[in-house]
Order: sequence, then C-alpha cells, then structure tokens
Amino acid sequence: MATGKIRMGMIGGGKGAFIGAVHRMAANLDGLIELSCGALSSNPENAITSGKELFLPEDRIYTNYKEMITAESKLPESERMHFVSIVTPNNVHFEPAMLALENGFHVVIDKPITLTLAEAKALKEKAAETGLFVCLTHTYSGYPLVKQAKQMVKDGTFGNIRKVCVEYPQGWLSLPAPADNKQAAWRADPKKSGISGCMADVGTHAAHLAEYISGLQIDKICADLNCVVDGRALDDDGNVLLKFNNGANGTLMASQIAAGEENALKIKIYGEKGGLEWHQAEPNTLLIKWLDQPMQVYKTGNTYLSAIAKFNTRTPSGHPEGYLEAFANIYKNFALTLTAKQNGEQPSAEMLDFPNAEDGVRGMAFIENVVASSKSDQKWYDFKI
Amino acid sequence: MATGKIRMGMIGGGKGAFIGAVHRMAANLDGLIELSCGALSSNPENAITSGKELFLPEDRIYTNYKEMITAESKLPESERMHFVSIVTPNNVHFEPAMLALENGFHVVIDKPITLTLAEAKALKEKAAETGLFVCLTHTYSGYPLVKQAKQMVKDGTFGNIRKVCVEYPQGWLSLPAPADNKQAAWRADPKKSGISGCMADVGTHAAHLAEYISGLQIDKICADLNCVVDGRALDDDGNVLLKFNNGANGTLMASQIAAGEENALKIKIYGEKGGLEWHQAEPNTLLIKWLDQPMQVYKTGNTYLSAIAKFNTRTPSGHPEGYLEAFANIYKNFALTLTAKQNGEQPSAEMLDFPNAEDGVRGMAFIENVVASSKSDQKWYDFKI
Amino acid sequence: MATGKIRMGMIGGGKGAFIGAVHRMAANLDGLIELSCGALSSNPENAITSGKELFLPEDRIYTNYKEMITAESKLPESERMHFVSIVTPNNVHFEPAMLALENGFHVVIDKPITLTLAEAKALKEKAAETGLFVCLTHTYSGYPLVKQAKQMVKDGTFGNIRKVCVEYPQGWLSLPAPADNKQAAWRADPKKSGISGCMADVGTHAAHLAEYISGLQIDKICADLNCVVDGRALDDDGNVLLKFNNGANGTLMASQIAAGEENALKIKIYGEKGGLEWHQAEPNTLLIKWLDQPMQVYKTGNTYLSAIAKFNTRTPSGHPEGYLEAFANIYKNFALTLTAKQNGEQPSAEMLDFPNAEDGVRGMAFIENVVASSKSDQKWYDFKI
Amino acid sequence: MATGKIRMGMIGGGKGAFIGAVHRMAANLDGLIELSCGALSSNPENAITSGKELFLPEDRIYTNYKEMITAESKLPESERMHFVSIVTPNNVHFEPAMLALENGFHVVIDKPITLTLAEAKALKEKAAETGLFVCLTHTYSGYPLVKQAKQMVKDGTFGNIRKVCVEYPQGWLSLPAPADNKQAAWRADPKKSGISGCMADVGTHAAHLAEYISGLQIDKICADLNCVVDGRALDDDGNVLLKFNNGANGTLMASQIAAGEENALKIKIYGEKGGLEWHQAEPNTLLIKWLDQPMQVYKTGNTYLSAIAKFNTRTPSGHPEGYLEAFANIYKNFALTLTAKQNGEQPSAEMLDFPNAEDGVRGMAFIENVVASSKSDQKWYDFKI
Repeated sequence: MATGKIRMGMIGGGKGAFIGAVHRMAANLDGLIELSCGALSSNPENAITSGKELFLPEDRIYTNYKEMITAESKLPESERMHFVSIVTPNNVHFEPAMLALENGFHVVIDKPITLTLAEAKALKEKAAETGLFVCLTHTYSGYPLVKQAKQMVKDGTFGNIRKVCVEYPQGWLSLPAPADNKQAAWRADPKKSGISGCMADVGTHAAHLAEYISGLQIDKICADLNCVVDGRALDDDGNVLLKFNNGANGTLMASQIAAGEENALKIKIYGEKGGLEWHQAEPNTLLIKWLDQPMQVYKTGNTYLSAIAKFNTRTPSGHPEGYLEAFANIYKNFALTLTAKQNGEQPSAEMLDFPNAEDGVRGMAFIENVVASSKSDQKWYDFKI
Repeated sequence: MATGKIRMGMIGGGKGAFIGAVHRMAANLDGLIELSCGALSSNPENAITSGKELFLPEDRIYTNYKEMITAESKLPESERMHFVSIVTPNNVHFEPAMLALENGFHVVIDKPITLTLAEAKALKEKAAETGLFVCLTHTYSGYPLVKQAKQMVKDGTFGNIRKVCVEYPQGWLSLPAPADNKQAAWRADPKKSGISGCMADVGTHAAHLAEYISGLQIDKICADLNCVVDGRALDDDGNVLLKFNNGANGTLMASQIAAGEENALKIKIYGEKGGLEWHQAEPNTLLIKWLDQPMQVYKTGNTYLSAIAKFNTRTPSGHPEGYLEAFANIYKNFALTLTAKQNGEQPSAEMLDFPNAEDGVRGMAFIENVVASSKSDQKWYDFKI
Repeated sequence: MATGKIRMGMIGGGKGAFIGAVHRMAANLDGLIELSCGALSSNPENAITSGKELFLPEDRIYTNYKEMITAESKLPESERMHFVSIVTPNNVHFEPAMLALENGFHVVIDKPITLTLAEAKALKEKAAETGLFVCLTHTYSGYPLVKQAKQMVKDGTFGNIRKVCVEYPQGWLSLPAPADNKQAAWRADPKKSGISGCMADVGTHAAHLAEYISGLQIDKICADLNCVVDGRALDDDGNVLLKFNNGANGTLMASQIAAGEENALKIKIYGEKGGLEWHQAEPNTLLIKWLDQPMQVYKTGNTYLSAIAKFNTRTPSGHPEGYLEAFANIYKNFALTLTAKQNGEQPSAEMLDFPNAEDGVRGMAFIENVVASSKSDQKWYDFKI
Repeated sequence: MATGKIRMGMIGGGKGAFIGAVHRMAANLDGLIELSCGALSSNPENAITSGKELFLPEDRIYTNYKEMITAESKLPESERMHFVSIVTPNNVHFEPAMLALENGFHVVIDKPITLTLAEAKALKEKAAETGLFVCLTHTYSGYPLVKQAKQMVKDGTFGNIRKVCVEYPQGWLSLPAPADNKQAAWRADPKKSGISGCMADVGTHAAHLAEYISGLQIDKICADLNCVVDGRALDDDGNVLLKFNNGANGTLMASQIAAGEENALKIKIYGEKGGLEWHQAEPNTLLIKWLDQPMQVYKTGNTYLSAIAKFNTRTPSGHPEGYLEAFANIYKNFALTLTAKQNGEQPSAEMLDFPNAEDGVRGMAFIENVVASSKSDQKWYDFKI
C-alpha cells in the first residue's frame, strides 16, 4: 500500500499560462498526487511568484528545469519528486523530458510530445531503456464514455469497422490573433510549435481519438491543409481522407477558423452491425446506433457500462463529469501505475490505460505525414513512421 | 387569377413504388394541383389498378407514358394535363421528359435528372428551346430554414465563406439487400441507376445543398468512392475533398453503409464572422454561430425570419413541418410559376425558387466527376461540365 | 372499394383564418378527401372570394352554414358532401354540428368541441342516436410516436403507471394582444371562447394527450388558474395537480405567457419499470427510459415500431413528419372509417383511432372542472362529468 | 496573501460513503484546501483505515468528531484545522456543527442542514453570534451558468418574473431498495433523514435553485407528497404548486420513483420579456428565450458571460465542466472567504456567494412546510419560518 502521495514537479505553467493550471487541477482532484516542486517559468521572477502562490516551499521553487532536476535528484528518496510534468510550448518538451528520464524521473508531457518525429522516437527509446513511464495528456481519451466506446468496438459489438469520421472544429483563430494572445502566438510560431499549427494542436487529438476507439491504425492519407487567415505561417485548417489498416475508410477534419465553434471534437464510427457517436462537448452521452433497433443513449456512471468506463468515473449517473475529470483520469491512472510499481506490483491494464510514448510517436508521425501529404500531388500518401 | 387547379399527369409511381406516393402527397398538400391522369406503371395491370385506387377517371388511366403524352395532347386545353411528373428509376427519366417537352408539357422529375451528363444537357437545352419548365425535386432545398440559411449567406451575414462540410450518411444498405427490396435493387443496378450508387442517390443531394446554401460552386474535387459490401456493383459510400470557386475548402461524405443512420443529411458552413448548421432530421432548427456571441437557434415559422423562409412555411412557429412540406414547397412554387405564366404574369423570384434543369446538369456533372476522380491517381480533379 | 373521394363541406376557414387552412391541408394530403363545398365565412363577400380561391364550383359556395346544410341535403347522394368540417370559434361549434347531424352529415370539429359541457353531452347523444361520426381534431394524438407511446403503455411495457407530467407552455400572449390579432381576440373573449382561455385552448390538448397515452382518466384535480396579463378576462396560465383513476399522480401546466416558448407541449410518463418522454416540437423522437438499461430513442418510420404507429406514418425513417401529417392522420382515419361504412364494412380499430364526441365531452369536463377547482378553497376537487 | 492552504477536518465520509469522496474531490481541485485531519467514521476501525488511505498523519486520524474538535482546538493556530466538513447522514449534522462553532471552527455541511427547522435556526444564530461561517453544499447553485442565470434575472433582463417551474426527477428508488444499499437505507429512515424523504433529499435542492436564480421567495404552497413504493416510511415523490412573494406562480416536482431518470434537475423561469431554461445534466448550456428573437444558447467559458459566471469557471469554452467543478466552486469561494478573513480583508460578494445558514433555514422550512401542506386539506398553505 502507498505510504504517501505521488510527488510531482512541474515544468512551465506559471502565472498567465493556460494548460499548466489544468494539469494541476487534474493532478489535485483525486488526492493521489501532490505538487512538490516546480520550475514554473523561464522567467525567474514569475517562477518564484508562481511557486509561492501555489504554496510551494521556498527551497523547492526552481527557476529553471535543469536546476530542478539536478536538485531533486539529490534529495532523499522519501522527499524527492517522482515525476515531472512538462507543460511548456512544444519546443521545450524534448530536452526536459530526456533530462528527467536520464535522472530517473517519470514524465508527464502535454501533446504533441515533441517538435519532431525523430525526437519522439528518441524519447520513446529512452523510456524503454530506463523502464520509466512517459505519459502523454491526450485528454479526450480519458473520458469514461470514450473508454466505453473503445471497449465495445474491441468486443466486436459493431462487427468489422468500416468507416471512421472524426472532426475537430474550433473557431478561436478565425481572426488574426491580437498580439497579446499568448496562446495564439506560440501556436502560430513554427519555432515553438513545429511544422504544423492546427493539425499539431487539435488534429493530433482527433487522430489519436480515432485510433484509440477504433483500435485501428491510419495507413494512408490524402491531406489538404489550409492557411486561411492571411499572414499566418502555419496551417489553421485541414481536411484529410483516411484509410485504416483493416481497409476501413474515414475522414478527419480539424480547423481553428470554424467561426463560432468552441471545441467541437466529434467522432462517428460505423461497423457492420451498428455504429457509435460521441461529442466532446456533451461527453457524458455516447450514442449507440443499430441497424434495426432504436438508438441507445449510454450515459456516464451507469451499472450497464463496462469495467473500464466505471474505473474512470467518479460520480453517480446524472452527475456530469467534464474535461477536468477526463484529464484527471490520465493523472490518476499514471499515479496508480507509479504506486503499483513502488509497491512492487504489476500495474493492471486499467492503470496502464494512459497515452504513452508510443502514442506520442504516432502523433508526431501524423503531423509529419499530413504536412507532407498536403504538399504532395500524389493522391494517397503512405502513413510512415 | 387562376381558374382552376394545375393538372398533373404522373409517369411511374404505381402500387409498390415509394417516391411516387411522396410526389402525390406533396402535390396534394396545398390544393393547387390535381392528379388528372397517369401512366403509373410499365406493367399495364398495375397501371390500371393503381389509377383506380387514385380515383382517376378510367379514360385517363394510361398504360404507358407515350400513350399518355399523345392522348393528352389531343384533349382540349381546358382539360389536358399541364405537366408530367416523372417518378421512375433513373434510366426512365430522359425519354419521357424529352417527349413531354416536345409535346408542350412542363416536367417535374426526380433526381438525378438523367442517366448521363449528356442527357441532362440535352434536356436543359430542350427546355430552353421550348420555354417550358423543368423542375427537379431536390427536396432538401425546399425546407424553409435551408432557404433562410441561403438568404443569410447571400446577405453577407457570415462574411466570406471559408469552409463547407456536408455529410449524408444512411445505413439501409449496410447488408446485402434482400432480393425483394425493389428500392435497393434498382439503385444497385448500373443499367437503371447509372455509373454511381450512393453518390448518385444521396451524394447529389448533399452537393446540391452545399451549393444552394453557400451560393458557391464546386471547382475541384478529390474523391474516394468505396464499394463496401461485397458483390455490390456500384459505390455504396464515399468521401470527397472539395474546393469551391471562391477558394473555400470543404468535405462531402455520403454513405449508405453507415449502419444505424437513418437519413442524416447535415451541413455546416463557416464564414469569417460566424457559421451555420442544419440537420435534415430536425429541419425546423437552424443553428447560427458567432465568434463572440451566444449561438442562436432559428426556428421555422417565426417573425424574425426572411421573406423567402416565410413564403415556404405553412404553420406557425412550434408546429413542426417535415419532409413532405419541403417536398410540397417545390410543387407549390412550380404550380405558382405555371399559374403566373397562364395569367400572363412574370413569376416572382420566390416562385421560381425550385431546382431546375441547370441544377440537374450540375448534379449529373457531380456524379461523373466524382466517379472519375475516384478512379484517378491525380489528387485534385477539375470539376468539369 | 371506394368509388371516389370523401366529400367535405367546410364551415368557417375563409381568408384570414388560421386553422381552416390547416384543416384543408390535412384533408388534402392523402388524396382521400375533396373539398366539395363551403360556407367559409359569416361575411358573405369573404365567403364567396374564399370559395373561388379554393376553386369551388360557384353553386357550392354558400354564405352561411344553414344554407349549405339544407342545399347539400337536396343534392343526389353521389354529389352531396359526406361531412362538414367546423373550423369556427368555439361559440359556433354546437349549432352547426347539431344541424349537420340532424341532416345526416358526419362532423369534424376543432377542439374544444363546444362552449359548454352540456352542449358536448347533447352532441355526443345526437351522434349516438344518428349513428353518425363526430371527429374532434386533437392533433397531437395523431402523431405516430404518440400512438407508439400509447401502445407501449397498453402493452404493459412500463408496468403500472405511477406519474404523468404534461406541460404546454406557449409565449404568444405574453403581452396584451394588439387589437388586430384575430386569433388572440376571440380566444380572450368569453362569449366566443367560453369560461376559460388558456386551459380551453391548450390545457385541453395537454389533458387529452395525458389520458390518451396513459390510458388513464383524471379523477381529482387541484387547479391554480392565473390571469397574468392585466386586463385579460380569461385565464392565460395555469398549474394543476392531478390524481388519476389508478392512483397515479401528476401535474399539468399550461401557459400562454411563458415568454419565449413556441408550442412546447411535452409529456413524461413513469411506470414501475421505466418511462417515456415526448416533445411535440421534435415529434419524431420518443424517449424510452429504463431502470437499468440505456435510454432508447425511438424514431418515426422504423420497422421496430408497433402496427398502429406504422399505420399513421407516410415516409421512411429519417424523413421527418410534422404537425400537418399528424393532423392529416385524423382526417385520414376519419375518411377510411366513412369509406368502410360506405362499403358496408366495419371500420378497423386503427381506422377508428381518432378523437370523438366522448373525447369532446371529457375535454369540456376538464375545462369546467379546472375553472371550478381554481375558484374553490377545497384542495382536491373531484373531476365530474 | 495566504501563507498556506486552508485546513479541513472531515466528519464522516469514510470508506463506503458516497458524498464524502465528492466533498474531498471538490476541496482538492483548486489546491486551496488540504485535508488535515478527519473523524471519518463512527466505526473506529473504518475511521482509521480510511484516514490512512487518505494519507492523513496518524495523530490526526480521530475516531469520533468530539475528540477531533477537542484535540484540534489544542493545536497551535498554524497547524490546527480551520473548518470542519460534515458529510454524515442528516441526524448527525446539528451536534457536530454546534460543537465546531463553539470551538471556533467554521463549518461546511451537506444539505439539508439539520434534522429540524428549530435546529437550523439555532445553528444560524450560533454562526451569527460567533462570526464564523457556515457553508451549505447546495451544489447546483455552484454551476457557472446558474450564476449567469441569477445575474440576468437580477439585471432585469426578463422583466418581472411571472412563472418558475422546477423539477427534479430521479428513478433510483423506483423499486424497494435492497437491504445493502446504504444510501437508500438512511434516506428512508425517519430517524436519520427526518420527516421527509424525497423532498428533503432533492426537493430542497429544487427549491433552493428556484429561489437562488429568481431572487424570489416561496410564499405559499400547495403540496401533494406521495409514498409510491409500498412499505416506504417517507415520501418518495411529490408535486407542489407555488406562489412567490412577488405574485409569480410556479410548480415544483421532485421524485425518486421517476423510473429511468438519473438526476434530471431542470428549471424554467419566465418573465415579461423572455425566459430561461437550464438542465443540470447538460450544465454548460443555458437557454435564453425571447419573445420575438431566436433563442440563444449560452455556453460556459465565453467572454460574453457575466463576471460572476467567469469567476466560477476554470476551463475555456468548449471544455465542459461538471458536477465536481460546481461543488468545488462552493469550496473555493468558502476558502477564499476564509483566506480574506485571515488576511484581515473583507471577502468580496463573489467570494461570499456560497449557500449559508440562512439558506439552511429556508431549506428546513421548505421541508416542514411541504410536509404540513401535504397533510392539510387546506388548498394554499403559508410558507412559515
């Protein structure tokens, strides 16, 4: 049995950042993890102020991640952090992650895992070599009904899968972003974001969700990436035709210029016997469709759901769970995995059900392949890793 | 002012047919049209029984359309039919339509207008030459909120249109059709249906809807048609990337193997300032989305709607209209057009707002282009007419 | 077999009227009924103009209903109307209906059936005496999924019914009506509308729907009627506690000052094993709820529905039906009943499934009982007929 | 500025309890509160095991609440708990709360606040006397869009409020509860639950929500409580007619035998100019209805919302928040209030926006009044405090 909470050190996520606060709430929720230290900003002043506001002890507020990793390494095992959580822009993922692994710390990292596919592969290799865990926060696969959907597909409920349609329209980049929009700024900057904007930011979520639920892998693509708003350096929109490794076809649409959309990730999957539909904005509803029977509305928290859905649910049916709970499922499963390891136990399949370095590699491959396909005159482009 | 109802002669639509009954109900609804005669089946016995069941006078029950057109031509003007309604399989569209036009009768015809693009062009030319009207029953553009959507786009409500996503999944051909399913049988037979199955049957509706609302024209396509169920001769599914003539991008998905879907035609259009969404299954709701304001839910029958929407509405708000009302709008506008002509008046723009031979030509072009694109290795295929 | 259409004579419904046009469209839809004559307005000029616009032969355009009933009585059986359709304000229901029955004509009448309960009873008695049919257009029980709901309750699907909650909020009388609003004017005038406004106009629909689906009868009530808008003579809002004859409890809310509501009739029924929910604004959806299984979404037009639902459906699943189709089901079933009678056959239970004089009596009793209960200090008021 | 987290001592909520875990997650989420000690069960063994599982230090795991309050009182101010959170059945609310207040600890307490109205009043008085805070977890008023709704009503957006309809159907007690259902058991036991079952458990939430959003107070009631399942000692269902202090009318329905419902709290409020509708199951959507304009769909997290809604939101629009976030808003606002007090500042109105002892008194009055009204033959019953 665990003798204490799992200790987290955060890299990035100081005042003014968005996703860092989300990671902290997700890590807080279940009382399994405590924020023990942080290098919360590359700006030392911000790092210190942010650490104080989060009630960190002064000697564990660091002003850069190298210092943190070094210093924590030297603390007694009973005190030092167990893992780092990296919530910086994409260009500051790879180095701190490698350094953490090299120093014996597990890693949580926001997606996309790195700036390039090559980095992602290196990270995956390092994780394998060290036996440490890398956890990638593809939030949307953390929802209980997404896990229910995956289970039903796996159980053969719908027969062979024939078609997968996923879409992820947002509207927040419909206009040229104001200069002071920090979120918009780094995402539009190739140096910080990499070779893709929209496809890296939200397309990867859509691709991961499609593969996660269907259990299939994208095999060929035909991509049309667009830069709709004048003066933008990276794609802000795109449509992709898909072929999966079982021959199923599909579509993936991602956009950040879909004016009026908030965060409208939706997926529809069709098999021989029926289909499913899930919308992130109403995540506690999973529509199950049948050839000759009424559609069923699965709702989170019910007894009729699969074990894996229940394992990832906190409240009874009718008490809606949201984005933070899905995010927290990733942290919770990761923490349970680390605890099991500490106790010398093998983590269960349910505990290990969080996105990992392999998913990170596939995500980076998705980005590189869609960008290449979009530039190509060739119709079908092989999805290469 | 009209001195009587507009008289319709029906070709096809005898007992056991599906769409013929729909056409009759649509034509009946407003009391502007009467069924005066019919060649309701190529089977003489069925033609006669069907005519009697519809209370046709015995001397105006014909056993083939040629006979009907000839006989009606000889009746006094005050008695003879004004137009034919052609509700046969695709391969029996062109000849009766040409014959009707040649004999001075207007034509209503189910979509797709003909078996080939060449026939469609010939029909359009003949209509122009004779000054007669050809009306194509693309039902879905008959809904009042579709007309509202078109008007709002035209008025610049959303600014320049950037993206159009239309999907039309059905599930009824998910399994090999039983031999006695007449509807499934002719649609799967290239001789009766033409070179495409799903794209001809429902893809054309989706394409028409996209162009009707957006006011744009499809310019380039990249199509992936699939024949998912073994042994089927024609496509039963397909995904298409689109480019429109103003540079907007888009997607079109049509399927008849989307297991569990009924008739789920949906469209989303995004402009610079906002977007719209409409689902055929809930046709009295039009979602209007804004960059920084709450989404609005437009509902049929309200005072805030445009004149064209009101012109096509029969009941007050909250009294839902459906598919037959949308279908009836096409017949009503067509009948009002003929009445205006009879009275020596110019039909108003609202009356003339029914799909016509030009839409039929674009529909056939859509079919021929997506089939060609799908067979091609070329990524972008020019939409040719 | 029928040798011709059923012939209708309309009383009221001239130019400027609302519900008359609805009745005509409903009667037109299936091609079973023809409008043969009319006394379309108490204003002779309007009666004549309206008759011409509807293409009635001049000699069958009457300027008052007495004249029409007398004149039609004298026509040969093969020509004269079969029934009258009474679409006038409530105070002109009873007399024309009685006169029609006395002269051998069946009657269709808009709800509420009469101005008083006593009149309703007299009408019911006269119908029984003459063997003629009285049909009351409680539209909402004409929807196929309402019939499905009734069938499922009857089949014991939900076990014993425990609770029935029905609500019918509208907002169109939220403000004092402008003087030229004909619809609002007569409904607010006790001489034309009777002792109740909102409860007579929409409360009766709600009560009928509750009894129709549940198969129960209201037994005791506790009513709170309100006259919310200053200066209005009749109730424009009300809430009622219900007890049914099996002990089930319930609520009925009806309002015409529910600002922003269109025509939001909704019903929820709960039994021991599950429940159902139906919304008139989305009439092709019936929600079926279970204790320990996912909710099911029944949709119009599917093979899994009951025979009675299918009998009242015209289009395949996914092709939405609306208010006019529900209305038309009443006319269609009435016409099939008359046709069966003409052919010397017993109409089937499905044909006879239209609201009749008995439903009219219960509707008038509902009005008189809720008004009396609302005035009373007594908590529970026996529902008396 | 705060120098550390606010420290919580929990009473109840050991292994096997439901609501205790919810309180802990809510308190954890924002990192403002730490669980410092607990008397987690009246069963000492369970208390100890539960404390260890929550990583409490052994010396702060207590086996009863009296011991905890006494012991914590003696700890240095920098260590001892700031408040107790009472998550026991209703009959163990009053005594620990009084004891806590008497010893200088603030109190969070689950609803209903006590077993009787008299106790509630005593608690309110004690809080006033000591200057300590009592916080009542009426979760549903913690949702951001509920706060938005309240603000819009307060701002006069809808004009004078005329009608308030609230319903809270659940189905989980549709069958006699199995003996081992701990949640069902205590709620059905008058000794633990008080004089009401359903109305105390969920009716109070509905009443609080109605008063919170409308800003009105219930003034008269006419209640019909039912005990539907045989052998149950307390009401499991009820319907109530309402009159508010401004003359508005309303309805309140609460049920735990509404088979197939999960936790379907819904509210509709109508004013002169428009209305609003909110469903707890889709809490990120607030429908705003207008007399002559399209309905608007307000969604959590948008810039157009009021300051109070934003203050209670953690994620950007499109990232759904749920029940735990609403619950956490109560804890967060409570913690911010305590922190402000610690810092010698006046808590802002936004911080103080959590249900308090006064709300507890009104809740207990609601219970006592509906039970009395239901037993009475009198129609309208004055809401007495």
